[in-house]
Formats: sequence, C-alpha cells, structure tokens
Amino acid sequence: MLQFTLDTTDGAARAGRFETVHGPVLTPAFMPVGTQATVKSLAPADVRATGAQILLCNAYHLMLRPGAALVARHGGLHRFMNWDGPILTDSGGFQVFSLGHMRKVSAGGVTFRSHLDGSRHELTPERAMAVQAALGADVIMAFDECPPAGATRDHATAATERTHRWLERCIAAHHTEQALFGICQGGMFADLRAASAAFLAAQDVAGCAIGGLSVGETKSTTWEMLDASVGPLPQHKPRYMMGVGSPEDLIEAVKRGVDMFDCVLPTRLARNGALFTPDGRANLRNARWAEELGPVDPACDCATCMDYSAAYLRHLFVAEELLAYRLASQHNIRFLVRLMERARAAIIEQRFEAFAAAFLARYRPADESARMTQRAKWLARGTAGGAGA
Amino acid sequence: MLQFTLDTTDGAARAGRFETVHGPVLTPAFMPVGTQATVKSLAPADVRATGAQILLCNAYHLMLRPGAALVARHGGLHRFMNWDGPILTDSGGFQVFSLGHMRKVSAGGVTFRSHLDGSRHELTPERAMAVQAALGADVIMAFDECPPAGATRDHATAATERTHRWLERCIAAHHTEQALFGICQGGMFADLRAASAAFLAAQDVAGCAIGGLSVGETKSTTWEMLDASVGPLPQHKPRYMMGVGSPEDLIEAVKRGVDMFDCVLPTRLARNGALFTPDGRANLRNARWAEELGPVDPACDCATCMDYSAAYLRHLFVAEELLAYRLASQHNIRFLVRLMERARAAIIEQRFEAFAAAFLARYRPADESARMTQRAKWLARGTAGGAGA
Repeated sequence: MLQFTLDTTDGAARAGRFETVHGPVLTPAFMPVGTQATVKSLAPADVRATGAQILLCNAYHLMLRPGAALVARHGGLHRFMNWDGPILTDSGGFQVFSLGHMRKVSAGGVTFRSHLDGSRHELTPERAMAVQAALGADVIMAFDECPPAGATRDHATAATERTHRWLERCIAAHHTEQALFGICQGGMFADLRAASAAFLAAQDVAGCAIGGLSVGETKSTTWEMLDASVGPLPQHKPRYMMGVGSPEDLIEAVKRGVDMFDCVLPTRLARNGALFTPDGRANLRNARWAEELGPVDPACDCATCMDYSAAYLRHLFVAEELLAYRLASQHNIRFLVRLMERARAAIIEQRFEAFAAAFLARYRPADESARMTQRAKWLARGTAGGAGA
Repeated sequence: MLQFTLDTTDGAARAGRFETVHGPVLTPAFMPVGTQATVKSLAPADVRATGAQILLCNAYHLMLRPGAALVARHGGLHRFMNWDGPILTDSGGFQVFSLGHMRKVSAGGVTFRSHLDGSRHELTPERAMAVQAALGADVIMAFDECPPAGATRDHATAATERTHRWLERCIAAHHTEQALFGICQGGMFADLRAASAAFLAAQDVAGCAIGGLSVGETKSTTWEMLDASVGPLPQHKPRYMMGVGSPEDLIEAVKRGVDMFDCVLPTRLARNGALFTPDGRANLRNARWAEELGPVDPACDCATCMDYSAAYLRHLFVAEELLAYRLASQHNIRFLVRLMERARAAIIEQRFEAFAAAFLARYRPADESARMTQRAKWLARGTAGGAGA
C-alpha cells in the first residue's frame, strides 16, 4: 500500500510525497484527466513534459469502451495508453450519478444505461473494484454516491450513509496491491461533512478523497464544506479534492490542507482557446493576440510558450488546426502543474500565505455567473458530464 | 541557388540530393503538406520523427490567413511554425485555379475571391514571388495555370503558354536567395507536355516541377503524360511531381525519374482512420482491429507502431479522441518517407526494378472508382480543394 510522507506543513498547507511502483508523486499535485485513456489532444510525452506526475482515467468510460478486459489483456492502462508514470482511476460513481433518469440506485449498487448506446450495466462496490483491478492503476477510488448541490438534508444523509456502506464493501472486495482511496461526502451540510470525514478517517484506506464539491454550489459554500471535511482527516494520509481545477481554487484548497486535485478544466478551456496566465484567462481568439510575436505568457516555461508566438497560436485557433488544441492544452496543464510546484516550494520555505496572497491578488478569476452558466450548459448535455469528457 | 547532385541512376530512377541552408534533402523524397503552416495534427518534432526532410506550405492559404506580412515579422515560416528544416512553398496557382467561378484570369494574373470571407485578391507572377519571399521558404514555386483534366487542346495550349510567360516573369521578379522551381504543364496532350517540359528545361531555374497531373485523369494517362514531361527535363536538376502521394503512385513515378513529391493524402487518410500497410490501406474503424494487441504494421518503425497497439488506436478513433489523428498521421507520413528511403537504397544498390515490383505485387491500391468518387467529393467542396486542407 501507498506510503505517504508529510514533508512540511505551513499553516494548514502541506508538502508531502508518496511512492508508487511507477514513480513518486510530490504534493500538492494536479492530475491531468485522461478520461478515455488519453489526455485529450496530448501524447504521453507531452503530458510528461508538463511536469505532471500522475494521471486520472475514468473507470466508467473505460468499462463501457473499450472495456476493462481489453485493457487488462494489454497488461493494464500503463501499457495500453503508453504512460509509464502513476495513474489513478476514479470508480465511476460520479459519472453514474450524473446520468439522471438513466440510472436506478439500490442498496446493492446502481443499474444504468450507457450514454454511448443505451445498453444496460450495473456498478456495485465489488464491480467497481473488479473493473479498477483490471485497469491496473496505481491508485483506485471507492465507489460512492455523490448527491447534487441542491440535495435536501435527507437526500444527502442517505447518500452519505450509502457511501459509507459501499466503502466498507470496497475495502472488503479490494485484493490487489493498488492503493485504495476512500471518499467522504455529506452534501452541503457541515455536520454531515464532518461526520463523513470522521468515518473515512477511521477506515483502512491509503488516502482520503473529498467528493461532491464544486458541483454547482457557491464558492463560499465550497470552502465551508471543505473546511468541515478536512478537519477530521488524518495528517498521515493524502487528501484528494475531486474535480477541482481552476488556479484560484487550487490555491484556496491547498491553503486548507488539500494535497491532490484533478479536473478537465485546463484541457477543456484549452480547446476553447482560453489559456491561463498570471492575470487570468486569455482568449486566444481575441484580435488582441493577432500581432503578438512573443509567447502568450512570457513567464511560462511550457513547450508552447518556449517555441511559439501568441500570434501563431491564434492563427491555429482561427484556422481550426488541431495543433492549436494540443499547444493550448500543454500550456494550461503546465500552468497548473507549475502552480502546484511553486506552492510546494512556498510551503517548504514557510511562505505559502504570502505566495497565495500574491497569486490571488493578481489572478482575475472567470466571472462566477459566467462560470455557473457554463457549468449549467455542460450538465445540460446530460450524459456523464462533470469529470467526463 | 540550390545545388542538386545526382548520386546514382538505376534505369530512369534517380538517387540524388540537394543542400539548403536549413539542411540537406536526399531524393527521392516525400514532402508532408503543412497547408496553413502546420502539418495537420502534428507538431514539428513529430514530423521530424517521421524522417521527413522538407515540408510544403501553401502560399495561397498563408497570404489570406494570417497574411505573409505577419509571417515575415516572425522572420519567416521557419520561425513562425517552429520547423528548422527545409520548406517549400507552392505559389498559389493550383489553389486559385481550383476556385472556379470565384476567379477571373487575364494575361496579367488572376483576381479571385477568398474562400474564407469572399474578399477580393489578386495573384500575379510578381505578387506570387513577393508573397513567397515574405514567407521565406528555401524553395519557391513559379506561378502557373493548371488546366483541369478535361481541358480541350485549345484550353490546355492557352494555359501552358500563359504558364510559360508567367515563368519568365517569375524569374525576372525573383531577387532572393531562395531556389525557384519552374512548372511545366500541357494538359493531357503528350506533345504539349513535351514542348512545355522542353521550354522549362531551357530556363534558369533551380528545379523542374511537373504540374497538372493526378487531377482526375486515369492512371494510364497520368503515366503517359509523366513520361512525355520527364523526357526533355535536364538530368542535373531535381524533378518534382506535384500533388502525388499514394504509395503505388510514388513508386511508379520514381521508376520514371521523379525526385520529389507532396500530397495531403497521408494526413487526410489518417484523419479518416485509414493507415498505409505493406498490403494496402487498413481501416482502423473496422472491428477486425478491436482486439489486436500488436501494432497496425509489425514491419513499421514509426513512433505509433513502436508504442501503441492497433486496438488502442482503434479505441481512439471510435472514441473520437484527437490523439487518433496524430498517431495515424505520424504513421502514414513515416510510411511514405520510409518508402522513399527504401527506394533510394534500392536505386543506389541497382535493384530498384525488383524492389518496385515486389512492393507493387503486395500493395493493394485503393479501388480506382472509389478513389474517383472520393476525389469528386473533395472537389465538390469547391474551395481550394486539391492540395488544400
């Protein structure tokens, strides 16, 4: 099982590390998402060049296509997708609960229809463990129920209770050398959050994930719920806040003691022409970049900013050339990975608070109402949204 | 000006080389096409990894977007697109004559409307030279008129005459260190072909291109016209057959004394899931590949075949992942580049005839009627088709 070392703390912020057979992960760490066994638009060498240490792949998507058995016949995800670093798979819980009317929940598990072809499938804690064993990631996630942001107290309580029972079954069904992380829930109720985290803290798992946040609630609620969740968690295990990935959110969460993150945001924004800069998102389709012979971000050390002008990148976007999506994705992932590298250095040097304040003072987040609208649009697509494509 | 060395001949087949300030080109050589200053789906390092020595970019597309002046402000195409090897630009003639009703030809040049926004532009021999000077490629092409495959003798004669007058004007307007290649035409009339090639042979140009072939005529006509064109061309200059790129056509043309080729075929087919193999094209969407744990082509040394199973590549195509287009493009370009490397070795070792026969005996070309249908579809898109996107 995974050994986590806490190197330093600075306030609640933590610098740590853990080892996997595929290499070490220094935390805090951002994990790029390779939903379908590929980080969209990037080859493994590009991902490696961003400094990313560990990838996330989605068990839900891979069990449906191409199927966990085919991946297993390749010897697992590492060989299948040609990534020799650490991999984490999520359990499919989040995706299955995003399916809405296409799924039916019972104490045993969830039956659902595939978003691809409507075929009928079942996920249970035991099946989620078996699928993830076949996929062969270094870190695997418990099967949980994620209630929506607007869930009532009764709904959130029931989902959290079920998540606890399913975690016990995942632990019982877990027979591989893979590191199993549990997930705490609790909806938007601080006392449920604290109770769920306390339950998780008592379990024999390698790491602790905080699920069900950043699902549509306001930012202030996110941080209130995160604080309630982090409080009871043990110091000596990694803490993973699922599905969070904007630069300002990473900083806020690291400040509160989180070690790991994943999100499709950097690659999804990249494909829309939005690139992270120290001042906020830059829209490369904007005419402002048409004549810019320098890089998008002069302070950036990514392969894109080292080798290409902003004007060239804009040309690729305007001309709808596939290379645009790749160069922008490289940049955005590198931005988040480097942000975590700098956060780690600041923690070790006991200056995280000043580092975070300076970053947040300069970085202009995307407008919250725009953010909500965008999220509503994604969710309206209806199928396996959130942490999906 | 470019110095071409003819290393060896084997029958009519030739092994040669030329030097540019950006490096050498060993011939016969296939040039991948980077229409809009990017080989679709590939970064320069990927193209380099295929063994490609020289790229083609399209002056027509680049003058319209992002404009030659912006490229010039970057210091030229090499810096703009981050490719430090040799580049050849075509003159825009082929694209402009593909515009149909959107252009008007006179003795002076061609006025046309942009396929992007309908804006009005003019290309003349002088303007084609100026645009290509600004783009800064190592090899530039004369501005020519390419008559369609069905052109009458009168039409072909007029177009060929105009091509000759325009070549003289291109030579007069050419004031850079770039190597200027002339183009011969002649429609589908062997005597016009021979006369045009004889005219070109007498001009002060660095290389000789054969234009207006593979534009919809039958294969037997293509080879008849090629033979008529090659006959009068000088031995000591490179010969470039424009827009040809199927494996079997490359072999047939090398056999007849051609040194250089370009075509969008390998990258276009790749994006459709068709990969070259020694037996013909493989359609990766086909279920036959779903469980194939080995590479698409076990004999191939490309980055794709070295690192990925056919089943993974098929998964990417079925899941519509962008990486699919890149991995397939790498493979197809490498296939053609390697084919030319093997042809060169065979010529040097005086065994080209046997090599060509063995290749052609095994390789099953795409059905000619399917090929014609596909071509008609491309042309029906109406705008800057052929050598375009």
